[in-house]
Amino acid sequence: MTTPEPDFQTDRAALAGRLKMILPAHCLLVDDEDLRPYECDGLTAFRQLPLAVCLPESEAQVIDVLRTCHQLGVPVVARGAGTGLSGGAMPHAQGVVLSLARFNKILRVDRKARLAVVQPGVRNLAVSEAAAPFGLYYAPDPSSQIACTLGGNVAENSGGVHCLKYGLTVHNVLRIRVVSIEGEVFEIGSEAPDAPGYDLLALLIGSEGMLGVVTEVTVKLVPKPELAQVVMASFDDVARAGDAVADIIAAGIIPAGLEMMDKAATAAVEPFVKAGYDLRAAAILLCEADGTPEEVAEEIGRVTEVLRAAGARELRVSQSEAERLRFWAGRKAAFPAVGRITPDYYCMDGTIPRKRLAEMLSAIADMEHKYGLRCANVFHAGDGNLHPLIMYDAAKPGEWRWAEAFGAEILEMSVALGGSITGEHGVGIEKINQMCVQYKTPELEAFHRIKYAFDDKGLLNPGKAVPSLHRCAEYGRMHVHQGDLKFLELERF
Amino acid sequence: MTTPEPDFQTDRAALAGRLKMILPAHCLLVDDEDLRPYECDGLTAFRQLPLAVCLPESEAQVIDVLRTCHQLGVPVVARGAGTGLSGGAMPHAQGVVLSLARFNKILRVDRKARLAVVQPGVRNLAVSEAAAPFGLYYAPDPSSQIACTLGGNVAENSGGVHCLKYGLTVHNVLRIRVVSIEGEVFEIGSEAPDAPGYDLLALLIGSEGMLGVVTEVTVKLVPKPELAQVVMASFDDVARAGDAVADIIAAGIIPAGLEMMDKAATAAVEPFVKAGYDLRAAAILLCEADGTPEEVAEEIGRVTEVLRAAGARELRVSQSEAERLRFWAGRKAAFPAVGRITPDYYCMDGTIPRKRLAEMLSAIADMEHKYGLRCANVFHAGDGNLHPLIMYDAAKPGEWRWAEAFGAEILEMSVALGGSITGEHGVGIEKINQMCVQYKTPELEAFHRIKYAFDDKGLLNPGKAVPSLHRCAEYGRMHVHQGDLKFLELERF
Repeated sequence: MTTPEPDFQTDRAALAGRLKMILPAHCLLVDDEDLRPYECDGLTAFRQLPLAVCLPESEAQVIDVLRTCHQLGVPVVARGAGTGLSGGAMPHAQGVVLSLARFNKILRVDRKARLAVVQPGVRNLAVSEAAAPFGLYYAPDPSSQIACTLGGNVAENSGGVHCLKYGLTVHNVLRIRVVSIEGEVFEIGSEAPDAPGYDLLALLIGSEGMLGVVTEVTVKLVPKPELAQVVMASFDDVARAGDAVADIIAAGIIPAGLEMMDKAATAAVEPFVKAGYDLRAAAILLCEADGTPEEVAEEIGRVTEVLRAAGARELRVSQSEAERLRFWAGRKAAFPAVGRITPDYYCMDGTIPRKRLAEMLSAIADMEHKYGLRCANVFHAGDGNLHPLIMYDAAKPGEWRWAEAFGAEILEMSVALGGSITGEHGVGIEKINQMCVQYKTPELEAFHRIKYAFDDKGLLNPGKAVPSLHRCAEYGRMHVHQGDLKFLELERF
Repeated sequence: MTTPEPDFQTDRAALAGRLKMILPAHCLLVDDEDLRPYECDGLTAFRQLPLAVCLPESEAQVIDVLRTCHQLGVPVVARGAGTGLSGGAMPHAQGVVLSLARFNKILRVDRKARLAVVQPGVRNLAVSEAAAPFGLYYAPDPSSQIACTLGGNVAENSGGVHCLKYGLTVHNVLRIRVVSIEGEVFEIGSEAPDAPGYDLLALLIGSEGMLGVVTEVTVKLVPKPELAQVVMASFDDVARAGDAVADIIAAGIIPAGLEMMDKAATAAVEPFVKAGYDLRAAAILLCEADGTPEEVAEEIGRVTEVLRAAGARELRVSQSEAERLRFWAGRKAAFPAVGRITPDYYCMDGTIPRKRLAEMLSAIADMEHKYGLRCANVFHAGDGNLHPLIMYDAAKPGEWRWAEAFGAEILEMSVALGGSITGEHGVGIEKINQMCVQYKTPELEAFHRIKYAFDDKGLLNPGKAVPSLHRCAEYGRMHVHQGDLKFLELERF
């Protein structure tokens, strides 16, 4: 069984007429001018206007919209804040965008049970702010946490710099309320540790809007650690920095964060943020310990010992909360900082087994020559999650295609090294071809069967996340690296 | 769409003939005498002889057995060590038992990547033994860990006393190899932190043999902590002990284990194990800290402070590894110890939000009077996971029915308090009716759709884990508590 790739043909006027019957005027956009802000998410290279944007204010309205689209056979793309980087919220030309922006209430913070019940349009950071008076916070912290929403986090199974110790979204969500494409509401998960039956909670988290629309999220809150401190270590050699990461984990230490930036990244960041990074280093590591003061002192001691043994040239431990935040500010601003030194950049998100970090970095250096583009490297190193930032100029004809091919080669190398094509940004539209590299037919068929179980008409976010077998066959035929490169050469010159 | 409950009619001779063609003689049992050891698992109240037991030695043989059964429409029940407590491995009268007992090889222990690749018939404890030379171990530790296998752990998503800190099986498995009922092999998960596509790994873990047969498991290994110490605290009042558990968690401490036993449990254990428990206490707590000596000292200090403030009457900290193991020996022997003081006992496995522990204990005390049966209570308290042990005598006519009704009321009370009907033992055949209490129609329909996606003929472990909607309708009609009780009264007297 494979999900069909249906050829949707929507009668725009009929759709608008039906939506007007179920939504008040201020909850519905149908004019091109109003639709424009929704034409892309954070993956700005892919743009598409939808036929309509729905902004429901109640679960009943969500149900009505979904039922209507189901009846009419109209594609539905759910959208949070639109900060996603893989185009998961890019509209469908024949479809509706279902924005959850108005589901922005924090319904309950339970100090004793250490959980919060929130609507999906609540911003990630707002949850921690609401929990702060109780000494609690929500652990997953994607770089976009000021803007991104919990609903989007659930759809993408978002991580962040602290997910090495505190886990991804799937490890921090207890329960969700979901509306199916047929308008049926179900609740999955519970406040207790495990729920009987198949693990629908984990199945829905990270399903990129393909299986249902989330209308409520119950998240775990964790106690704010008394203290956190960061060690910054400089290395003369990128491979040595990669090995140091493996050494820390092998020593049985699970830091609260373990990040790496190469010289290209620190050089972009330092003039912008003045984080105090060592600009002579080939790479720096940032390693955070959190807990009670005793725990932190003990862990910092062990970490510095391992780093020194691994050949760190210089070590600095943050001496105040202000300094700690400055160290992190540089890391968190890496993307915009790179954005300042290049007209455009393309952010990748592959994962590899930690012990292959050095190998990957050397391969990326070779690819810079091959594609004639520079690349700055920022990693959630402890997780083996890489964010190479490929710099290019969209104004130069064909250069985007080169960046795209460079990115594809990084992802395929990730798979070859035993990793995966996405750590936390999702597949979306961006990495759908690489899914053909990641998986073989039996796994893809299992995905399609699950999709069919929830959405037999294939209306939820069509064309995203899971490629059809037909598409993979085509990709396999076309995808001969040297051939690609020749084609691109022709295009450029 | 609901999965049919098909009425299987197997031609025994034809089945045996086909199986003989694909398995060597020493891998196939068909005589009743040989089948007898497979008639039940740890839930001995439910017994059924299968038509055949297959003991394949290679994945190719597993594929052949599954393909054959799929062709003939014969039910298949996969089986590990048969230590399960919910009857998940109870045979089907018209079916085959597929034992993975001979898949008992540890294929690889990777010290640097901190993982092990094992076959599903490897015993849980054997993984830790193989990892011990590297200072590593496999964290989930069900009480049956000497005997139970990794395949069974994956099927049931097993926990153990350390899962509060280290997670359930689903948090400790990186990758599995699975054969579908149609004989297709797929691999899900990876050594990297997350995998793109729907989370099939979490979906398969805990699916109780209903979706596929696991032939290989890659597990995370964690460093053996340098030190572990246990605090034993006595309470005069069970409710106060329950509140102390909530206080520890609310203080931001995640102990390596946090267990509770009531007076009935300690009274059964102490003469048997001589663990040194305080027999005057209404309940005792065992709270373990692990880590470096500094971390342990710090955490033990904080825990004792919280326990004292919560009204603990007596506190003892283990002063040696021997004493720590003795404290745990009592807890781990609680089930057999209760088995010594009663002809039979029925072990429940409900979960509740931690803050409702005291309420639950008082309700169970009332039920003891109502059903005229004693109950000893052992808890994974930190998880809110209860194991009430209902004592009865199977030789007394009708007494099993009373125990069963007592157990059902505990589970339904767990759901009413916001918890669930199973923490770690699975649903199996035992709690299938309580699934009707736990879930409403939309959730059950989603389960059936997933089952259909993997096994459209419903051949894998039929009649387990997920009740049909028809069954739930019947159960709802019959299930009026007072009516039940009157019926049972009539039966007893």
